[in-house]
Amino acid sequence: MREETNMPSLPPYAEHNSYSKMRELKWSSTERAIARRAFDRVLQQELDAAIRATKEMAARIKQPHELWELEHHLTELRKAIDSKYVYKYSKLVPFFADLVAEGKLGLEDLRGLSEDKLRYIRHYAESSAA
Amino acid sequence: MREETNMPSLPPYAEHNSYSKMRELKWSSTERAIARRAFDRVLQQELDAAIRATKEMAARIKQPHELWELEHHLTELRKAIDSKYVYKYSKLVPFFADLVAEGKLGLEDLRGLSEDKLRYIRHYAESSAA
Repeated sequence: MREETNMPSLPPYAEHNSYSKMRELKWSSTERAIARRAFDRVLQQELDAAIRATKEMAARIKQPHELWELEHHLTELRKAIDSKYVYKYSKLVPFFADLVAEGKLGLEDLRGLSEDKLRYIRHYAESSAA
Repeated sequence: MREETNMPSLPPYAEHNSYSKMRELKWSSTERAIARRAFDRVLQQELDAAIRATKEMAARIKQPHELWELEHHLTELRKAIDSKYVYKYSKLVPFFADLVAEGKLGLEDLRGLSEDKLRYIRHYAESSAA
């Protein structure tokens, strides 16, 4: 899913400044629409996968303790999804970067975002995939 | 499941005293074995039913919110089972009475308990079924 790029990654000393700048990025209406669509699409994929996994887990239950394992699995899943999928513009760049690094989103899904945002996303995706 | 009986029920003024006496009943080794078997059997039935209901609920999931409904269902179920199935001799008589009233246990499953215990169980089962 990752696009090859010839852009150099940010040097380590730039990390702090780049993080501050990243939080201050402005989002145009078009960019907001692109971001929202990508966000919703990935969330829906995650929820669909969760539904499939839950059905499989339930179908395999033979012993009572597996009921409470399913309950625990659902509680952890809900917390993980709630904490991961927070739609805040100040956090969208690292959020998208994580999804790109995980292979859940391609840079092509974010086409239309400004080049500075895409550069940060590529940079952070490469750092977290490394 | 209820056995017909010609024993008179306890008069209302006897309720408090009978409850105190019920808690002080002595359980012989044979009675303990009978009680344990009946307790385990009903708990197993309840858990088997819970497994079946959970599999059906999971199989029907179509929307993400149903995942969290399943989680909530399992949490409530676990709490209900934990609070209902407490194996304490001081609480076994009303516990068995409830199960008899609910039709989950027959008095024949408790055959071998002393007549005073069976009398209390019949009495409380009739009160709670009324």
